[in-house]
Amino acid sequence: MGVRTASRLENLGTETAFAVAAAAADWKARGNEIYPFHLGDLDVALAPHIVEAMNAAIADGRTGYCPGAGVPELRAALAEDVGARRGTTYSPENVTVMTGGKPVITKFVQAVMNPGDEVLYPNPGFPIYESQIEYHGGAAKAYRYLPTETGFAIDLDQVRSLLTERTVAIIYNDLQNPISAESTQAEREAIAQLAVEHDLWVLSDEAYFEMRYEGVSTSIASLPGMAERTVILYTFSKKFAMTGSRLGAAVAPVELSRVFSTMNTNDESCTTHYVQWAGIAALQGTQAPVQDMLEVLRGRRDAACEIVNATPGMSVEVPQSTFYLFPDVTEAVGLVGAEDLADFAEQALHRTGVSFCTRNHFGRPQPGEDRSYIRLAYSGLSQERIREGLTGMRRWIESAR
Amino acid sequence: MGVRTASRLENLGTETAFAVAAAAADWKARGNEIYPFHLGDLDVALAPHIVEAMNAAIADGRTGYCPGAGVPELRAALAEDVGARRGTTYSPENVTVMTGGKPVITKFVQAVMNPGDEVLYPNPGFPIYESQIEYHGGAAKAYRYLPTETGFAIDLDQVRSLLTERTVAIIYNDLQNPISAESTQAEREAIAQLAVEHDLWVLSDEAYFEMRYEGVSTSIASLPGMAERTVILYTFSKKFAMTGSRLGAAVAPVELSRVFSTMNTNDESCTTHYVQWAGIAALQGTQAPVQDMLEVLRGRRDAACEIVNATPGMSVEVPQSTFYLFPDVTEAVGLVGAEDLADFAEQALHRTGVSFCTRNHFGRPQPGEDRSYIRLAYSGLSQERIREGLTGMRRWIESAR
Repeated sequence: MGVRTASRLENLGTETAFAVAAAAADWKARGNEIYPFHLGDLDVALAPHIVEAMNAAIADGRTGYCPGAGVPELRAALAEDVGARRGTTYSPENVTVMTGGKPVITKFVQAVMNPGDEVLYPNPGFPIYESQIEYHGGAAKAYRYLPTETGFAIDLDQVRSLLTERTVAIIYNDLQNPISAESTQAEREAIAQLAVEHDLWVLSDEAYFEMRYEGVSTSIASLPGMAERTVILYTFSKKFAMTGSRLGAAVAPVELSRVFSTMNTNDESCTTHYVQWAGIAALQGTQAPVQDMLEVLRGRRDAACEIVNATPGMSVEVPQSTFYLFPDVTEAVGLVGAEDLADFAEQALHRTGVSFCTRNHFGRPQPGEDRSYIRLAYSGLSQERIREGLTGMRRWIESAR
Repeated sequence: MGVRTASRLENLGTETAFAVAAAAADWKARGNEIYPFHLGDLDVALAPHIVEAMNAAIADGRTGYCPGAGVPELRAALAEDVGARRGTTYSPENVTVMTGGKPVITKFVQAVMNPGDEVLYPNPGFPIYESQIEYHGGAAKAYRYLPTETGFAIDLDQVRSLLTERTVAIIYNDLQNPISAESTQAEREAIAQLAVEHDLWVLSDEAYFEMRYEGVSTSIASLPGMAERTVILYTFSKKFAMTGSRLGAAVAPVELSRVFSTMNTNDESCTTHYVQWAGIAALQGTQAPVQDMLEVLRGRRDAACEIVNATPGMSVEVPQSTFYLFPDVTEAVGLVGAEDLADFAEQALHRTGVSFCTRNHFGRPQPGEDRSYIRLAYSGLSQERIREGLTGMRRWIESAR
């Protein structure tokens, strides 16, 4: 008994970052100081007006089931907000509320991909893309990013070389986790052109669309011919520090929205009713907490970049979006005599308490990769703690030189 | 564009009860009085101590991500509560928190069933069983209930006749929706014996385990040899009037719990963090609101049964559990000259405002069914409104006689 589970489970991946969290927790439990740079979470309180709206909804009796697609008022608020910020027009029928941004990935894959179909996805990238494509019987085709003067760029030649008759979709994560890359308009247009030419669905993961320190974001969905083939992954998690609230949405062509709604009815009935009213308050209430949080994050980014770039064998371009740094640590790995990235991370944890994910937590390395990277999430530590932790790491590497 | 969706969607069912809700809403919007007996929802406020615990968790900063399997304190509280009420022993490792009871259905099916495998399920029954079995490529084999002196009993001969080499699981819903049937101990043991003999997984949907008016429930998981092959679907929805909170759990053998946890990490990261702390308060705080609610529901049940049994051509045994009546309306359909059950329901709505689901909303009718049934959910209306609505229906049928 207990071993007769379904074969599909052999293809189910996960976020191996949880192993990093476990190692850090274990090291901390043994009495050591920990600097957790491994988590893409925020140490920011829920804004009071969001909590108040949730309690008002509970007091109003909004505690029963609601429509699988979401409460109409939230669908309307999202259609307006998402459309306005992207220069496009959406109706409530384009919006399906979900329990966070993540469900959009599995529901998109299930809706557009048959077993044997091929889906392109970024690697390094959010590991659930690869997991869900393979779990549902598809072939996950990784495309890479190449370092540039100002950060990273998609290897468009590789993307073109991966397209076949079986390619049905491309997953695109502008303002990228873990790399913090942002497409130029030319790159975005190139991806869009390929999608149109090859009649592909696009999952545009826009989790960090408004998590930026200057300029404004552009959505691939706003380019000509793209709205009808693009599903936007929207989440309240980052912008409103609502990671634990589990509230997000798919913004999609109506025929896919209907599918997503039926999937919701099957999978979880609906998203927590009163949390949806908190979401309406987040969208329509004061945006001061969002600006305050971005200012805090900017300070943390600058502190982290400064120390990373002063550390021997480490370097990073200052990203204008997300809350991740993806420094090249190739020389630092050599300086401390680490065998590989995993050993480097383990040594860093045990010698300095700094805990982080490496490139290898974001997909299987591709052939020909000769540089080593780590991901530092600076969203969950104060500027002081960031300075403390990274300075410790700097001294460790300096002393090994 | 937009039509190239995946073939698997052809096998995705839904809850057609939503069409009933839509028809009722439409009739109400045209200025008519409505008595909504179609919804398995509760018009009961969240208990104050549950709301307070949620706000305390938010104030404590429990607003970020938490483990995919659930917060350890809730897993421990559920292991203790579920085990104690079933005379079994569970550890926190047996518990995976989910966004309601419904996700347990899809995750169970995905975990134990390969495409082509056969799964037995109750029909009439909760429609998502059939939908998820077929969606994931299995063969859904319906077993029926037969009327008895005191309610309904599973057709065990039919269950035996359906078992084949390809049967991997049986879905069992003691305290049944929509029928309100409860197994005798002999029936429960017969199902368990078949599961052991044929080495089947069992999904025991125990959504209504504590929704009863006398006696105590027995779980099939507590029978010899069953804990290691049974997944209990647990939900906070009914007992604590938390339908809109979306909080439930799978209680399962450890190897399946690990699978469910990985599925959570893929599908939605975790269940809303602070709602899990509300769940701990629900389990460990005062149980007075639960008893109060059951007393209210008992009064509604008695009022509804009295009028149903005084209505020409309708009859029902008084159920000791759930909040559904499943009256035989075969003669009433004839009395009002309705063409079929759907026509009977439509006429009832338009002539009396009483809105309900019929047997046909709970699975495809099986060959040989010659009686007609409807489902009356009495959980969402006051006793006064129940009397008003059902008396109107009684007068309509009386006048047609």
